[in-house]
Amino acid sequence: MSASVPDPRCLVMKTRFTERFQLKYPIVCAPMALVAGGLLAGAVSRAGAMGLIGGGYGDADWIAREHALAGDAVVGGGLITWSLDKNPQVLDAALSHKPRAFMLSFGDPRPYAAKIKASGAALICQIQRLAQLDLALEAGADVIVAQSSEAGGHGMTNRATITLVPEVADILAARSPDTLLLAAGGIADGRGLAAALALGADGALVGSRLWASRESLGNSASKEMAVRLTGDQTDRSIVFDILRGLHWPQDYTFRALQNTMTERWSGREEELLAVVDEERAKFQAALAAGDYSIAHTPVGQAAGLIRDIPTAAQILEQMDRQAGDVLLRLSLRT
Amino acid sequence: MSASVPDPRCLVMKTRFTERFQLKYPIVCAPMALVAGGLLAGAVSRAGAMGLIGGGYGDADWIAREHALAGDAVVGGGLITWSLDKNPQVLDAALSHKPRAFMLSFGDPRPYAAKIKASGAALICQIQRLAQLDLALEAGADVIVAQSSEAGGHGMTNRATITLVPEVADILAARSPDTLLLAAGGIADGRGLAAALALGADGALVGSRLWASRESLGNSASKEMAVRLTGDQTDRSIVFDILRGLHWPQDYTFRALQNTMTERWSGREEELLAVVDEERAKFQAALAAGDYSIAHTPVGQAAGLIRDIPTAAQILEQMDRQAGDVLLRLSLRT
Repeated sequence: MSASVPDPRCLVMKTRFTERFQLKYPIVCAPMALVAGGLLAGAVSRAGAMGLIGGGYGDADWIAREHALAGDAVVGGGLITWSLDKNPQVLDAALSHKPRAFMLSFGDPRPYAAKIKASGAALICQIQRLAQLDLALEAGADVIVAQSSEAGGHGMTNRATITLVPEVADILAARSPDTLLLAAGGIADGRGLAAALALGADGALVGSRLWASRESLGNSASKEMAVRLTGDQTDRSIVFDILRGLHWPQDYTFRALQNTMTERWSGREEELLAVVDEERAKFQAALAAGDYSIAHTPVGQAAGLIRDIPTAAQILEQMDRQAGDVLLRLSLRT
Repeated sequence: MSASVPDPRCLVMKTRFTERFQLKYPIVCAPMALVAGGLLAGAVSRAGAMGLIGGGYGDADWIAREHALAGDAVVGGGLITWSLDKNPQVLDAALSHKPRAFMLSFGDPRPYAAKIKASGAALICQIQRLAQLDLALEAGADVIVAQSSEAGGHGMTNRATITLVPEVADILAARSPDTLLLAAGGIADGRGLAAALALGADGALVGSRLWASRESLGNSASKEMAVRLTGDQTDRSIVFDILRGLHWPQDYTFRALQNTMTERWSGREEELLAVVDEERAKFQAALAAGDYSIAHTPVGQAAGLIRDIPTAAQILEQMDRQAGDVLLRLSLRT
């Protein structure tokens, strides 16, 4: 091998996103609500990517505790926007921890943008549809996350990464070329990372794969179930939102592994509502007992690419190396 | 630029698929039923990719006419498998035109595999779920097409290219390493092609983008509508199957541009069935008049990446060049 062949481990990693935030990897760990805690966000940031603490519906005490668990790592945070609308003061609490970046998802980010940017945090806005891009750009987002239906947990049904990312990239290139773009949904290994960059993203937001790490707050039995099942065995529905009493705005659904609850109730949500007290008791008992044949495992289609539960640092190093290998292999096909 | 930097236009194109079939581009034009006729398949094959005539539900006269229109180009063909089950003798008619490759989609390919392979055609089997892969491998498929929900026309809802392709690639690597893999769904430019290869495919099956070519049998007004709309404006449903009286097996849906028909009836299919004669008359009148606010435009999420209606050869050349540029750019980020 001659000296002019680049080291494959260096091939992929320099993107506008790594340069802007001085990272080793063009990867953000999704601020998965109440699952991406301080241990995970801290481990991700220490390894050279960006960890975000998933404040979810906005419990200031939980957020403070998890920031403490991140130790000296420089992490960011995130909140669910429509929930923040009901409880806006939690933003001050979240920003008091001096997050490096702050991500808003699932709602209109404009009312909170000025405060986030004034705190010194970069503003990351997640969208699922092109129409939401306008709001994010009006808010002055530094980074757009284009989240597709493949993703685990909450999202929308109708777009996929391979079409949404290039379409958003073209709009940003024309209207706001300095705004960075991350792909989210289905990216769980170096092949997905290389694909995201090829599609025009500056990096990837990774959820499911880092959920299935040692440091995430997901339950071990739930993670083991994701390791066993394939990408065919997830579904989007509102079954688990009904069971948890979560009232999400219309059009948002929740992707999770199929189990007895989704098999029984997906597509029969009206009937579920008629017996919700009984089913909710079953669900809560299963959650307490760690029975994921009934409780929810909030993983995306990437389940089929998750075959072990390593540390976050191992996951990032492996994604990086594989992405470099893939791009080297393709570039040598002359 | 030193002589050691590879020509970007040569970077991507040598894959196992181009080598096996001696092609210039790792691209197959989807055998879109009654839309991919001889002009399109012939133009695609002459340009250096693989054109397949879309025999659809199996009209031997249509197939013969379109093969004649392909002229001296070496093309392949395709049929809808569940329809072939009802009309198996059309396979002999289709194979009498000596297709280079023959693609079966939407059903169990095993009853037809021996005859196709005995004719000298390569067998291409399209799947939408992992469970279907077993049948395709039992049939002895030379090429698997992993088709995801992004795709236009018929398909299934629950998988996306960015997760399905690497998952199938891993299964093939373990169980049938000589079987080639094409990605289908959402691939409409060089970024998507580069992404498909990064995900582990040997090439891409392209539908919507080549539907929106000058040579396809799609209606011009329908193509113009696809140019105007975005990738957010398509949906999967069975509305147009009901209107056309097509009885597809369960779990198959049809992605098309949203219009007044899908807005009115998607999710209300039971109600549509109650007034189907009246609505069908409206639909057929619109189809005859070229009114695509009512008739179907069978395009996928890639609609948002389709901005013109060039020749098939121009589309292929542009995808090739852009894929090469993308991979060169990524490989130089050291």
